[in-house]
Amino acid sequence: MGEKLAFCRKSCYCLPVNREDIRMKMKKMSFLAAIVAAGGLSAADIELPKPETQGGMPLQEALQSRRTGRSFSDRALPREVLSNLLWSAIGVNRDDGRRTAPTALNRQEITLYVCIPEGTFRYDAAANKLVQTSEKRAGDAPLMVIFTADTARQPERFCHVDCGFVGQNIYLFCASQKLATVFRASFKAEDYRPLLNLGENEQILYVQAVGYPK
Amino acid sequence: MGEKLAFCRKSCYCLPVNREDIRMKMKKMSFLAAIVAAGGLSAADIELPKPETQGGMPLQEALQSRRTGRSFSDRALPREVLSNLLWSAIGVNRDDGRRTAPTALNRQEITLYVCIPEGTFRYDAAANKLVQTSEKRAGDAPLMVIFTADTARQPERFCHVDCGFVGQNIYLFCASQKLATVFRASFKAEDYRPLLNLGENEQILYVQAVGYPK
Repeated sequence: MGEKLAFCRKSCYCLPVNREDIRMKMKKMSFLAAIVAAGGLSAADIELPKPETQGGMPLQEALQSRRTGRSFSDRALPREVLSNLLWSAIGVNRDDGRRTAPTALNRQEITLYVCIPEGTFRYDAAANKLVQTSEKRAGDAPLMVIFTADTARQPERFCHVDCGFVGQNIYLFCASQKLATVFRASFKAEDYRPLLNLGENEQILYVQAVGYPK
Repeated sequence: MGEKLAFCRKSCYCLPVNREDIRMKMKKMSFLAAIVAAGGLSAADIELPKPETQGGMPLQEALQSRRTGRSFSDRALPREVLSNLLWSAIGVNRDDGRRTAPTALNRQEITLYVCIPEGTFRYDAAANKLVQTSEKRAGDAPLMVIFTADTARQPERFCHVDCGFVGQNIYLFCASQKLATVFRASFKAEDYRPLLNLGENEQILYVQAVGYPK
């Protein structure tokens, strides 16, 4: 592997460089710089278990069971259930990176964040992991899913309909798993905004509370 | 049966009347009046078969198979499949009239219309029937589902997200049944508007094309 060549991304030209040289330089970098170089991985991030892409309740029964529930027990969702829920909502279901929920012109402007007992995290669908954005959390359920949209990438009305596609996936997953859930348009965005490290054009549009029924 | 008593709805009081009397009076009424008395039923309306609320593909597999398809064969959907699709989309799944897809504050502002080979129809979810609005049709697939919203009953942004809930139900039903479907924000509303007999505040927001894959 030491003999193989890579291309240095710092250069405007594509210059071949030796991977071993890069490794040596990396060792000299500070911890913080290493985190940035490795793409934002930190000890507090959560690698999710592989989501289940088979099984679950037959679709017609899940549709029959689909309802809104607003009362949650304190019990946290197991990591496997959280992984399955997020994949069901907006996970990658094809090699080309397309998702379980569509977006207009496949612009993928919707991002999900979660508030769980461990803090607040961004769902990285491609890597199937949770990237921590805060040690704090907000909301009244063991799992709060926060829907944001990059409004520079999509007209606002399509951001809303795209949130609906995702929200219905969560409703049906919850029906299948006998979880309670409510999609909320009415909530205090200021409770969540400080926890999310939002991009310049990223807006919080909806939240969806999830938990075991009380 | 002729001996049984019914209650005459025309009276403010609940007076027992004989069913046979009602039948005789009905025969004397004109055809048009009979249509009105029976609640708008006409020969061209379609009573849908009872939808299946069990079975179908396991949910996680339907999510794994969820995708957009844009190429349709000419084959019309059997009546049973049409009934199941519309029920899955926005059918009544509880005794209180609530639906497979939520609407903000349960305002149920979304109505679905369909263009099928027999013409154009409004889906009456409560009665599980199709009410004809035109003998003509539009669109490029054997089934075009037209989403309208009564914008006097719901703020516009919620109309869009509510369409998303319904659209995703159709996507997943199509995945389960190996049908092709595409949800479209870009279409000519003027092609559909003359076919729908729209209410004063009812606007066409989206269409979803459905058919067997070509």
